[in-house]
Amino acid sequence: MRVGVIGASGYTGGELLRILAMHEACEISCATSRKYAGERIHKVHPHLREILDMRFENLAPEDVATRSDVVFTALPHGVPMKIVPVLLEHGVKVVDLSGDFRFKSISTYEKYYQLKHEHPEIKAIYGLPELYREKIKKAEVVANPGCYPTSIILGVAPLIKERIIDVGKIIADSKSGASGGGAQPKPVLHFCMVEENILPYKVSSHRHLPEIEERLREFDERVSVSFVPHLVPVIRGIETTIHCFLIEDVEGEEIKKIYEKFYEGEPFVRVLNHREMPRMSSVRGTNYIDIGCFEVDKERERAIVVSVIDNLVKGASGQAVQNMNIMLGFKEDMGLRSIGVHP
Amino acid sequence: MRVGVIGASGYTGGELLRILAMHEACEISCATSRKYAGERIHKVHPHLREILDMRFENLAPEDVATRSDVVFTALPHGVPMKIVPVLLEHGVKVVDLSGDFRFKSISTYEKYYQLKHEHPEIKAIYGLPELYREKIKKAEVVANPGCYPTSIILGVAPLIKERIIDVGKIIADSKSGASGGGAQPKPVLHFCMVEENILPYKVSSHRHLPEIEERLREFDERVSVSFVPHLVPVIRGIETTIHCFLIEDVEGEEIKKIYEKFYEGEPFVRVLNHREMPRMSSVRGTNYIDIGCFEVDKERERAIVVSVIDNLVKGASGQAVQNMNIMLGFKEDMGLRSIGVHP
Amino acid sequence: MRVGVIGASGYTGGELLRILAMHEACEISCATSRKYAGERIHKVHPHLREILDMRFENLAPEDVATRSDVVFTALPHGVPMKIVPVLLEHGVKVVDLSGDFRFKSISTYEKYYQLKHEHPEIKAIYGLPELYREKIKKAEVVANPGCYPTSIILGVAPLIKERIIDVGKIIADSKSGASGGGAQPKPVLHFCMVEENILPYKVSSHRHLPEIEERLREFDERVSVSFVPHLVPVIRGIETTIHCFLIEDVEGEEIKKIYEKFYEGEPFVRVLNHREMPRMSSVRGTNYIDIGCFEVDKERERAIVVSVIDNLVKGASGQAVQNMNIMLGFKEDMGLRSIGVHP
Amino acid sequence: MRVGVIGASGYTGGELLRILAMHEACEISCATSRKYAGERIHKVHPHLREILDMRFENLAPEDVATRSDVVFTALPHGVPMKIVPVLLEHGVKVVDLSGDFRFKSISTYEKYYQLKHEHPEIKAIYGLPELYREKIKKAEVVANPGCYPTSIILGVAPLIKERIIDVGKIIADSKSGASGGGAQPKPVLHFCMVEENILPYKVSSHRHLPEIEERLREFDERVSVSFVPHLVPVIRGIETTIHCFLIEDVEGEEIKKIYEKFYEGEPFVRVLNHREMPRMSSVRGTNYIDIGCFEVDKERERAIVVSVIDNLVKGASGQAVQNMNIMLGFKEDMGLRSIGVHP
Repeated sequence: MRVGVIGASGYTGGELLRILAMHEACEISCATSRKYAGERIHKVHPHLREILDMRFENLAPEDVATRSDVVFTALPHGVPMKIVPVLLEHGVKVVDLSGDFRFKSISTYEKYYQLKHEHPEIKAIYGLPELYREKIKKAEVVANPGCYPTSIILGVAPLIKERIIDVGKIIADSKSGASGGGAQPKPVLHFCMVEENILPYKVSSHRHLPEIEERLREFDERVSVSFVPHLVPVIRGIETTIHCFLIEDVEGEEIKKIYEKFYEGEPFVRVLNHREMPRMSSVRGTNYIDIGCFEVDKERERAIVVSVIDNLVKGASGQAVQNMNIMLGFKEDMGLRSIGVHP
Repeated sequence: MRVGVIGASGYTGGELLRILAMHEACEISCATSRKYAGERIHKVHPHLREILDMRFENLAPEDVATRSDVVFTALPHGVPMKIVPVLLEHGVKVVDLSGDFRFKSISTYEKYYQLKHEHPEIKAIYGLPELYREKIKKAEVVANPGCYPTSIILGVAPLIKERIIDVGKIIADSKSGASGGGAQPKPVLHFCMVEENILPYKVSSHRHLPEIEERLREFDERVSVSFVPHLVPVIRGIETTIHCFLIEDVEGEEIKKIYEKFYEGEPFVRVLNHREMPRMSSVRGTNYIDIGCFEVDKERERAIVVSVIDNLVKGASGQAVQNMNIMLGFKEDMGLRSIGVHP
Repeated sequence: MRVGVIGASGYTGGELLRILAMHEACEISCATSRKYAGERIHKVHPHLREILDMRFENLAPEDVATRSDVVFTALPHGVPMKIVPVLLEHGVKVVDLSGDFRFKSISTYEKYYQLKHEHPEIKAIYGLPELYREKIKKAEVVANPGCYPTSIILGVAPLIKERIIDVGKIIADSKSGASGGGAQPKPVLHFCMVEENILPYKVSSHRHLPEIEERLREFDERVSVSFVPHLVPVIRGIETTIHCFLIEDVEGEEIKKIYEKFYEGEPFVRVLNHREMPRMSSVRGTNYIDIGCFEVDKERERAIVVSVIDNLVKGASGQAVQNMNIMLGFKEDMGLRSIGVHP
Repeated sequence: MRVGVIGASGYTGGELLRILAMHEACEISCATSRKYAGERIHKVHPHLREILDMRFENLAPEDVATRSDVVFTALPHGVPMKIVPVLLEHGVKVVDLSGDFRFKSISTYEKYYQLKHEHPEIKAIYGLPELYREKIKKAEVVANPGCYPTSIILGVAPLIKERIIDVGKIIADSKSGASGGGAQPKPVLHFCMVEENILPYKVSSHRHLPEIEERLREFDERVSVSFVPHLVPVIRGIETTIHCFLIEDVEGEEIKKIYEKFYEGEPFVRVLNHREMPRMSSVRGTNYIDIGCFEVDKERERAIVVSVIDNLVKGASGQAVQNMNIMLGFKEDMGLRSIGVHP
């Protein structure tokens, strides 16, 4: 299969190339970048030296489409909505990593992204395989989920489905590594601002919040999530601590079993033991989500669940390739068999 | 004034010495350590080279008492309860940094610390000056608060007092630097285990939880706190994100004003602006607590407040010296005028 | 092929298991650990959860030998010299990761390791494939090189061979991540001691110094290396800056070509461009050594070369598997095709 | 004394303000910044909240001069050469933190800074008090040394003066925290590029190299320094490892004594013991330079000395205030009595 990557110079672009380079059934047809057109890939992604011997190109979507069977768009929000229609016209399948096609409600998208959607008629499938695998199989366009939504939706869905928590008071306190902020230098991403600091940001207005609620409300429309993201001095990784209030009298071990059952057979979800905490190093560079803790505080009628992902892999490019594998009928873990780099 | 430090080789001991060395009205009478007796202070605390030209001593409490007017005990839980009575008999004032004297309820102490209290008759004052200043002035023994309790009690007390939040569902998600774990090497504090990781621990059973609730219940006995501490790749600093559910319709700016009023005139509490986030570097090495965020999410009826302290200063040794200053009638900021080392 | 790992609970043990789990021609026959015998592998190596479903065992060398065709010994110095003879008697091939068999001169070993060698008759091949590939092919025992020696020998050998530098004044200033210090907690590896610090150590007496000189003197017996290792706040990776004094008038570009020629066809050596600096992230989790810089300072008649490896992979377990592949006639990169996790 | 700070919004500007705020004989007359004119100081320097209650101003040099007795210029290279003459005309004393007035040889300056010097007639004193105190006392303009030069000149001068090393082959391998790169965001200072990496840069062409050699050649004109700076994942601090080749047979203890004698009475130089390594935390936030190691490798006829400073204090703003104190006849440590924040 010929695979094109539009917007290949950022962190998610680099991860797509890294994963696709390990994919036994795909060939990278092109990697586009306006800024670095003509440069060797490894000038920007030094880890790909002697692995991908190609150059960035500045190509029109049409040209990418003619060379490709499937295309990943790793572009700033607002751009894919202009490009994806062109790709679809040419009959290629698309996995879009932006927020442009993630929302069921266009008005929610327009409110949170402050953009007018130009192609509301395009119906993408939300690419969370653990919830939408059957639909992804038949999709022409997959909207790859945000990094925080992946960590939170998968982290709390079983509790909501099982109806054992107060769905109106779910707290998701997430901590993300700085790679989630992208490769562009900004004051807030300067080493001296991130190192030795923990910084909450967009504590009530993050774009991922409506994305999370829209999907969780499929289980229970009363869901309300208090989501606070933090920037932490880590390169890769999102740790989400989910605080819930129990409405049923359950034990930690039972909660663990609820998760095991919910995720049975899932290739990239690892359910840890009761009181076992997931670690970022276990998932570093991999497509796993590790979910653990499952602690119950009887006195306060609360439960705590912790999930960990690599924001650039399960939170972005790895999940995108997982979606592609499903769309194309490949084995779901093709290209995605890396093992976490621990310690 | 002659000041003795019992247990001077740990991190809080080192901070006591650093602060006392800058204190214009105190003289360090002795610094004890069994392990390092006879060694120069700067062998263990290299930053004190040419600043404190003294040696660790192995002294009985009686001997410390005869040399001192006031004594700090920076010892493992369970030890001060044996030593403080001896010090009191000798007429010295004591600031104890352990958990031994923090609890009003001895049974709570015994349950959470798994120790039998040998001197429940000793009534210490809980050394949070912002709440108990008048009592501290007259105290013989001050129980210096835990680091997390300092960050959480001061972070949420104004909201509880003002009766604008659901006090039964306060979530305190705290992130602490590794110095909070002490200087003793442990697997969990190995550089490779802390770096590039965010680790929740003791998510429902931390000893600081009952300490927090006991004090906050003085404002409202229905208080229940969901406290989850995390170990983060930072040397010093605790960031606490407090998630609350509002029972009154208030604006962020109003919340800010509630805090300003509550902490008016406090020398070590800085109230930031609405939507301004505190930074660890602003308080690094200082006795300040910076409180900010004050964000309201109307749709979800929630509010978020963020506090930041240096766990070894306002969270331990700085607050201990602040307490001593109050006990001895000194100016409250003596020895504590350091400015944050930012960046 | 059946592969046994003796001493599988440390960092190099964990890396061996990670790499062998990806190896298409090997099967792990056993992973021994006295301390963790009976525990699941993933209790110690959380990244191997659902990847290696086995337990640590406490086995005698004989028992490992009967189950294995090849054995890795990842044990403290002094222990392999007792075990390797037993393994050899049973006809298995051995790759030893300790210093026990690295030295041509037993007296040098005994001086620097402060141990009496019990089996000086065992002649191992020094497992640096770039220099000794032909001998490794026929070896029964391979002594896997130290991490610093790998980074330094490969970093400077071409310059010595080409006779363009003053071999009596080679300076190797190396910076290593904390995983090089092993998984055991020690004061010097406490997060608070490593973070925000750069610590030179054993600046004239490190055990790797004689190992480096012994091998480089095969090119020129006058070689003398001034080796200073530093502990830096990084998990994985060794960066070595090699400062040399030129005795020939050469350009940076020429030096680059000398390296290209020397390492032509090498699967795990990447020669960068003149003035291009290698990055730790490019080799993180991989068996590559990246060599670059190649800067010449004409005025001061000096040259600078920089090499970077992952100390646990090319500096230990990856190179060990590379050696095994050579010994067994496998393709040299089997199990070793991971791509660097950048950023 | 009225003190003005021109260019107060950068890291060195912030440190000047922090130190001056603690200075008992000075009053800050103004803090200029074009970009932040009108903003409160603590918007940029959050640690100065409630400590400096003033605003940045956009002022002409004349206006700063009329308000001030002494002025610090913390501006990009090339700008002070235009401003300092104006300040001098108005009779104020100046400490300039740029490279503009550091060089004895204008042609060296012009070559390395790629600028035409507009006022070569201004003769500044090089502000390294340990070498030039008497001249600084009488200076109208002090050129504050670079951060690397401070760490290297003070680190090696005693060995050169004592004529025990080969001065033509001094290697200075320096590692600097990211704050040395300034507050402006750049790709190379992005958290993800600095974290978990060690990056040599400008290995033969750094502007500090001629500055170092010019000063050290006052001791011996044959001095040649091989200087390689590295960017390391640390906020503050420069560690310099100095590798020398001995021409005399000396012991480590003797070298230590040479340093003790050379720096006798110096308020900000701490000479450690033989084999004792300085730590960045010991000098964090302080004006100290700690010098230690003093290791001799007899076999290879080499010696190693290690120095550590806080690049923003002794390497910039602290030394600038030390210079001001000397110029004004104040006690040399006024404003500079902070103790290192360790750990």
